[in-house]
Amino acid sequence: MAPGLQPGSGPAVVACGGGHGLAASLQALRHLSDRITAVVTVADDGGSSGRLRSELGIMPPGDLRMALAALCDDTEWGRTWRDVLQHRFTGDGPLADHAVGNLLIAALWQRLGDSVEGLDLVGRLLGARGRVLPMSSVPLEIEADVRVSATRSAPARLEVVRGQKAVATTRGTVEEVRLLPVDPPARPEVVEAVRAADWVVLGPGSWFTSVMPHLLVPDLAAALRETRARRCLVLNLVSERGETSGLSPAAHVRALTAHARGLRLDVVLADPSAVEDVEALAVAAEEAGAQLVLRQVRKVRRGRPALSSEHDPLRLAAAMRDVLEGSWGDVG
Amino acid sequence: MAPGLQPGSGPAVVACGGGHGLAASLQALRHLSDRITAVVTVADDGGSSGRLRSELGIMPPGDLRMALAALCDDTEWGRTWRDVLQHRFTGDGPLADHAVGNLLIAALWQRLGDSVEGLDLVGRLLGARGRVLPMSSVPLEIEADVRVSATRSAPARLEVVRGQKAVATTRGTVEEVRLLPVDPPARPEVVEAVRAADWVVLGPGSWFTSVMPHLLVPDLAAALRETRARRCLVLNLVSERGETSGLSPAAHVRALTAHARGLRLDVVLADPSAVEDVEALAVAAEEAGAQLVLRQVRKVRRGRPALSSEHDPLRLAAAMRDVLEGSWGDVG
Repeated sequence: MAPGLQPGSGPAVVACGGGHGLAASLQALRHLSDRITAVVTVADDGGSSGRLRSELGIMPPGDLRMALAALCDDTEWGRTWRDVLQHRFTGDGPLADHAVGNLLIAALWQRLGDSVEGLDLVGRLLGARGRVLPMSSVPLEIEADVRVSATRSAPARLEVVRGQKAVATTRGTVEEVRLLPVDPPARPEVVEAVRAADWVVLGPGSWFTSVMPHLLVPDLAAALRETRARRCLVLNLVSERGETSGLSPAAHVRALTAHARGLRLDVVLADPSAVEDVEALAVAAEEAGAQLVLRQVRKVRRGRPALSSEHDPLRLAAAMRDVLEGSWGDVG
Repeated sequence: MAPGLQPGSGPAVVACGGGHGLAASLQALRHLSDRITAVVTVADDGGSSGRLRSELGIMPPGDLRMALAALCDDTEWGRTWRDVLQHRFTGDGPLADHAVGNLLIAALWQRLGDSVEGLDLVGRLLGARGRVLPMSSVPLEIEADVRVSATRSAPARLEVVRGQKAVATTRGTVEEVRLLPVDPPARPEVVEAVRAADWVVLGPGSWFTSVMPHLLVPDLAAALRETRARRCLVLNLVSERGETSGLSPAAHVRALTAHARGLRLDVVLADPSAVEDVEALAVAAEEAGAQLVLRQVRKVRRGRPALSSEHDPLRLAAAMRDVLEGSWGDVG
């Protein structure tokens, strides 16, 4: 526990996202609060999660597991169980690449019949500093309109791409994303947490497939619009090779707000080394009602020249502390 | 916890066996002591354990998992995790029939590199009333000489049958069992526990494939012979359809002692309804140095005429209490 924190202390923070981006945000936020709620995309259809989804007909557990692991108690017990849940079987047999935590969560869901109850139990096992919730009560699929450039043999065209994995790795330009089923139900615990929060943090993460889906769940989107919480958008450090290839930071902000009419932001947090045109990003942030805050949050890779695309949890914690305390005026 | 028991109280009891028989014995013993050590056969090659053994090259975890489940703490937490570890996936996909606890134990072994450390951690998760240990530090195979009766097309002959599953279901008469590798190493924790015990309980369980293998691990067999602990053999309620078909209770005792020269017993515990010839069994027990104790320990199945082949944990607890206290003189 960070110095001075008591269990249940710190601001109530809701972190929205999925995958490694959300894990990074949670690893940072746990330095600042014990009252964290992670709201996780449940549209993954690749890897271990995708196989479990199709074999057992359950929600994809992988991003939920990663979020739980990120919040684990910093004791030998918490870290040991975190490592076990994150453990993947190797080889080329039927278990290969399955993360043990995915299998455990799947079993809990089958036994308990309720996704949140199962996740809460894993949270208790890990001594997690908060709660991990699926953003919807049903498994989701992502569908995108993708603009594909002209080639010698075909003219430019708009294609419909379906599936999180396919959208995340598309070589075209994503213009719009949708969820299937359309207008899925939000978990009531999620809506409550957003409405009761002091801060909501969106991103970082795969922009169209992990960060934006939250805005397409009507009750969750309404809660995000209407909550009295302040809202912070954390930008990525590079655009992903697939879905956001070539998209500028300012275009990231606009793509998000275009999917969430009426959503106001308070802060857009970016790393200066990831922003070529600071002025353009400041304008895009301002259009969304937000102040641009620039902080060095990139992971340092000793002895490697190329920039990491990952956030450093401690740097991000320091930056988020400034944001949560409203003390960002004089730097960057 | 049973009334009057403090954590770590009660006699030190080592229970040897495997599968459902050992689980029944542990469920009974937990009423009497918190100082239980289960020593478990690791020769299973069927079902979920067999598949994990061949896919991951690990010891079969199934009987170890069942023993841990039998010792779980009697709280909501303990029972919930027990049920999750015992949960089996259904359907016909690659996970079908895998018990979740087997997958978890497999992952712990791969991460921690030590079978006992992994089992101790699952024991802590369950709040187990004791410790569960593999009888050997390497996975084992069982091989048996099986006498096959003459048929119209073939004379009577002696066949070598290999594999726990094949031996347990053979239609011939098992004459001798062996382990592969021959003379496997015992876990030192097992030898220590046997030497420090007040009581050692052998059986019930699949006679040749779960109960007797312990006697074929040289260091374990020596500890069983030399310990100052008293030894109780718990007989099965029926002979299994396969390996001990037609074998009388007295023949069960003799088959066991024939595989363990010099092993003396103190008590042979049997249910009167499972013993046709009490006199013959008393003689066989006496040959092994033991007193025959008859107690009603069979599970009652309401509304069903056929006798159950399972021990009732509470009846077995009452019988074992008599045995452990040495107060068996005047009944049965």
